[in-house]
Amino acid sequence: MTRIAPGDVIGILGGGQLGRMIAVEAARLGLDVHVFNDDPRSPAFHVAARATTADFADTEALAEFAKGCAVVTYEFENVPVAAAEAVAAHAPLRPGAKALATAQDRLAEKSFVADLGIAVAPFRAVDDAASLARALDEIGRPAVLKTRRFGYDGKGQAVIREGDDADAAFAAIGGKPAILEGFVPFAAEVSVVAARAADGTLAAYDLCANRHEGGILAQTTVPAAVSPATEAAARDIAARIGEALDYVGVFAVEMFLVREGGEERLVVNEMAPRVHNSGHWTDVGAQTSQFEQHVRAVCGWPLGPTTRRAPRVTMENLVGAEVEAWRDLLADPAARLTLYGKGEARPGRKMGHVTRLSGAGEG
Amino acid sequence: MTRIAPGDVIGILGGGQLGRMIAVEAARLGLDVHVFNDDPRSPAFHVAARATTADFADTEALAEFAKGCAVVTYEFENVPVAAAEAVAAHAPLRPGAKALATAQDRLAEKSFVADLGIAVAPFRAVDDAASLARALDEIGRPAVLKTRRFGYDGKGQAVIREGDDADAAFAAIGGKPAILEGFVPFAAEVSVVAARAADGTLAAYDLCANRHEGGILAQTTVPAAVSPATEAAARDIAARIGEALDYVGVFAVEMFLVREGGEERLVVNEMAPRVHNSGHWTDVGAQTSQFEQHVRAVCGWPLGPTTRRAPRVTMENLVGAEVEAWRDLLADPAARLTLYGKGEARPGRKMGHVTRLSGAGEG
Repeated sequence: MTRIAPGDVIGILGGGQLGRMIAVEAARLGLDVHVFNDDPRSPAFHVAARATTADFADTEALAEFAKGCAVVTYEFENVPVAAAEAVAAHAPLRPGAKALATAQDRLAEKSFVADLGIAVAPFRAVDDAASLARALDEIGRPAVLKTRRFGYDGKGQAVIREGDDADAAFAAIGGKPAILEGFVPFAAEVSVVAARAADGTLAAYDLCANRHEGGILAQTTVPAAVSPATEAAARDIAARIGEALDYVGVFAVEMFLVREGGEERLVVNEMAPRVHNSGHWTDVGAQTSQFEQHVRAVCGWPLGPTTRRAPRVTMENLVGAEVEAWRDLLADPAARLTLYGKGEARPGRKMGHVTRLSGAGEG
Repeated sequence: MTRIAPGDVIGILGGGQLGRMIAVEAARLGLDVHVFNDDPRSPAFHVAARATTADFADTEALAEFAKGCAVVTYEFENVPVAAAEAVAAHAPLRPGAKALATAQDRLAEKSFVADLGIAVAPFRAVDDAASLARALDEIGRPAVLKTRRFGYDGKGQAVIREGDDADAAFAAIGGKPAILEGFVPFAAEVSVVAARAADGTLAAYDLCANRHEGGILAQTTVPAAVSPATEAAARDIAARIGEALDYVGVFAVEMFLVREGGEERLVVNEMAPRVHNSGHWTDVGAQTSQFEQHVRAVCGWPLGPTTRRAPRVTMENLVGAEVEAWRDLLADPAARLTLYGKGEARPGRKMGHVTRLSGAGEG
C-alpha cells in the first residue's frame, strides 16, 4: 500500500453532501481535497481545494484527475464501472471496483449476500411480464418490485399486494430490469455502519435503528433496542460482507429486524459501499465520525475509536422544507445542526441534519 | 441588523488556520465562504467556496469582495484599519473597527483596559532611548519591552533585567514605538474565550489555563485550577471589555494569575478580537466550538451552549517538527488531531493541534 501522508491529494468521485462531509474531515487531517463531479453546483465543491466538473464518461478527465491523487474514493455507488477503472489505472481506488459493481445491481448484491449464507428476503430476477408473473407465483404477495439499478430513497420501487395489477407495477418502475423481493414483516429497520482497514481490521459503530418516511430516512437512534446477541449478529454480518468484498473504507449494511415467537432475527436488505446517512449521528455522537474514519481507512491510517459520546444519540434528516426551521434548531441547545449548502429546498431533497446527544432517560 | 440566512456569503479577512476553521464551520451552517488574503498559499483557501488573493492595501479589491458578502469578519487583528473601512463601506464588518484599532496597538489596548478599572501591569509609552530610560526608572526592573504593533507569539518582545542594556533591548525589537510593562510575577497564565452577540448576550467558555514555550502557546487545560471567585472575576472582566467595545463575535482576554498571601488576583495581559488559540479545545471539548460560535455571533444567530463535554480537556499545539508525530497521534485513541494544511513545518510554525477529553482523574 502506498504511504499516504498529510499534504497528499485525496480525490473524491461525486460531489453531494456525503462528499462534502468527507472533504471537510480530509482537510482537517491535512489532506488536499480534489472533488470530481458532473454537476457544477455540487455541495462538496464549496469545501474542496480543487473541483473538476466533467462527465463520468469522460475517461480523459478522469485519468487527469486520478494522476494528481495519492488515493481516490467515492461518495455514491452509481459511479460507472468504466469510470472507476479509468481512475484505478492511475491511482489506488478505495473501496475497490468489486464493491461498486456488487452494490450497483440489486440482483448481484442479493446473490452475493445470500451466497455468504446471510439471510436475505426471497428474491427473483424480473426482466419482463412473464418472469414477473412467475416470480409472484413463487414468492407470493405482498412482494416488492425494485429496479436492479439506480434506486435510492425508495425511488424505483413498487409494492404488489393482493389484487394489485403486476404489469402496472412493472410499468411504474419504468419496465426496467428488476428484482422481486418477498415482503419482510419487520419490527424495525436497523443498520451497521463500519470501517474496514486494508489490514482487515473492522471498526463497527453501534447498531442504528432507522425510521423511514416516504422511502427517505427520517431518523436514526442509537443504541437500537435489540438484544446483545442481535447486535453481535449484525456486526458479524457486516464483518463477513466486508471481508468477502476485501473492502477498504466505511460501508453500511441495512437490515430488517424480525421478531417472531420472542426471538429476533436479521434479514439483510442492502449494503452501501460508502459513508451512509444512518451514520451521520457519528458526526458529534461518536469519538471518530464516519467521515474521518473513512478518510483514515482509505489512506491506510489507523482507525479511530467508534465509542459513543452519550448514552443516547439521535439524528434527524431535514428533508425539503423542514430546513426552514434552521433558526429554531440553532436556538435549541440540544441540537447540533449541519446544512449541506444546497440552494433549493425541493420536496424529498436532503438539506441537512440534526444530531442530538442525551442521557439514557432523556430525548 | 441585516437578516443573514444559510446560503448567504460570509467573508473572512485573512487566510490562516483560524480562518480555515471558521470557514469550515460556516460551511457546515450552510453559508457560502469567501476568503480574502494577501498570500496565495493560504490554508483557509482550501476549504472555502471562493478565494481572493490581493493586498490589504488594494481597497478596490476589498470593496469588490465586500459587495458580495452579507457579512465580513476577520481572523487576525492586524487587518489595516483602512482595509477594514473599505470593507465596512459595503458590508457589515463584525467585530467592528473599534476592536481592531484597540487591539492593534498595545498602548491603546492597555490604556483602554486600565480605563475600565481593570488591573493591568504598569506600563509606559516608549518612543526612544530617553523615554525608555524614564520608563525604566518609573517601572523598575525586570520589565518587558514590547513593540506597540504587530507582535504575536512572543515576537517583538524583550525582557530587561538588572544589568541588561536597555538600548540593546530597544534595538532588539527594531527600535519601533513600544511600551514598557512591569513584570508580573504570575503563578499561571489564563484566558477567557467568549462570544458576544449583537444584543449584548455573552457566552463565555470555561477559563483556560495556558502554558507557553518560547512565547508560543504549548498547551491549554480546562478547567483551570482557580477558585470559583477567580473564574467569575475573569468572566466579568471579559464581559466589561466586550461591552465597552460593543463587540460582536468571539474574543479572548489573556490574563496573568497572581497568587499572594493565599489570595488570587488577575492582571490582564492582552485581548484578541478574534477566535483564539487557547479556545481550540472547544473544537470537540465544548458543545459549540469557538469557530461555530463566532459564525453564529457575526451572523446575528442565537449563540450555542458553551458546556464542556468532559471533566477535563487539554489542547496541545503542534509546532514545527512536532507535526511529524501525526501518525502516532492518529493511533492514540484519546487524541483528536487537526492539521492546518500548511506545507513546510518551519520552526515556530503552528502546524496543527491535538485535543484530548478525559475524566477528572485522567490525563
